[in-house]
Amino acid sequence: MSKPLSKEQIKRIQMLHKKKFRDESKLFIIEGRKIIDEAIKYNPDCIQTVYSVSPERFTNSKVQIVEIENKDLKKISSLKHPQGDLAICHYLGNKPTTESKLKIALDQIQDPGNMGTIIRLAAWFGVDEIIASQDTVDCYNPKVIQATMGAIFNVKISYCELKPYLEQSKLPVYGALLEGENIYKSNLQKEGVLLMGNEGNGISNELIPLVSHPITIPRFGTGESLNVAMATGILLSEFSRM
Amino acid sequence: MSKPLSKEQIKRIQMLHKKKFRDESKLFIIEGRKIIDEAIKYNPDCIQTVYSVSPERFTNSKVQIVEIENKDLKKISSLKHPQGDLAICHYLGNKPTTESKLKIALDQIQDPGNMGTIIRLAAWFGVDEIIASQDTVDCYNPKVIQATMGAIFNVKISYCELKPYLEQSKLPVYGALLEGENIYKSNLQKEGVLLMGNEGNGISNELIPLVSHPITIPRFGTGESLNVAMATGILLSEFSRM
Repeated sequence: MSKPLSKEQIKRIQMLHKKKFRDESKLFIIEGRKIIDEAIKYNPDCIQTVYSVSPERFTNSKVQIVEIENKDLKKISSLKHPQGDLAICHYLGNKPTTESKLKIALDQIQDPGNMGTIIRLAAWFGVDEIIASQDTVDCYNPKVIQATMGAIFNVKISYCELKPYLEQSKLPVYGALLEGENIYKSNLQKEGVLLMGNEGNGISNELIPLVSHPITIPRFGTGESLNVAMATGILLSEFSRM
Repeated sequence: MSKPLSKEQIKRIQMLHKKKFRDESKLFIIEGRKIIDEAIKYNPDCIQTVYSVSPERFTNSKVQIVEIENKDLKKISSLKHPQGDLAICHYLGNKPTTESKLKIALDQIQDPGNMGTIIRLAAWFGVDEIIASQDTVDCYNPKVIQATMGAIFNVKISYCELKPYLEQSKLPVYGALLEGENIYKSNLQKEGVLLMGNEGNGISNELIPLVSHPITIPRFGTGESLNVAMATGILLSEFSRM
């Protein structure tokens, strides 16, 4: 039986729509049955509570499920069209790092859809780790989470200053630049950091000297540009095909 | 000097937000400075009228520019946040076909963002022609147009019944399927049709027997899936790299 959420409960969940409060509480929201299933499958311990208008759909008894009313779901959801289920999860920071030979570094990625798509790509191509500059969009932003399609639970994401990180790294740094070596003719190594820059401005000036291998996707037609997430996908494919 | 648009003018432009009226008048809307510049560059004849809140920004004298007020722009725009410029264009159907060795066939692509991204990819990789099933999203849908980033003017798009089209085609048909040959090990030809299926259901059952070369992007990690536009990008990269 569902019972109404208290005003206090609703407020506490709504606060998680904002990065400031997510960081304070180390909690974030995921929405929709598919992604909650992914969390249950890959990382059940991260789930604090699942709120659902039809909890009978969940069969995993390890997870705490609270039945709620549709009108309360609307209040706590970050979506225009809530999807019936919402879960509160703990930050994923303590996940062990597996040995990822290729890492992705993101320099000031701003668009949540791009960030989520890149996380989804990383999961597909077996890249276990993403390192993001401090001013990259928050990976717990609800729009990022939705765009990952659940892949947020399979990829370790850490935020740091990229300059010292890349300076200390002993791996080759592959930077996606407009003027670089044709990726189809490059000798790409399986170990390295793939550095992708901001949607409008590309890789920051201060990081360009740290790129040991400038690479570029050649243009065959008249197109003006490729979106950064698309470019990441094509580059990951090229690194993986070897 | 701007003068207010008449109610009749506003209504006629608003009607172009709907496919039915676009098809009747063979006119569609594009919005934003960047894409209008692309149209002027690649296909000035297709432009009927440009409406702009700051027409001095346009230097091309061949195109008719009408200065309008912001409040009128808001009425005629299909965007939540109008971008200052809107143009009415003629349908592009009469553009000559260049010799495209690889074509893309789209089977029931529903999402405007995916459709637009695929058109943008086609322009980048030099694919001159897209053939879409009748139930694929309309390429003149404003959201499709925005996602093409101007590439709509560089790619010929035609709608037809895919079954007879593929039956008559003498080219190899590469179909993106979950069970197919690993693309990195396939002997991809430069001539052919790349068939991409619907976001949820993939290629229709009636078209599967017409696929002569089933191909698949192998998964290296734990990801659940790739978005259809992303898969198209990775496949086009693989066809182009040879």
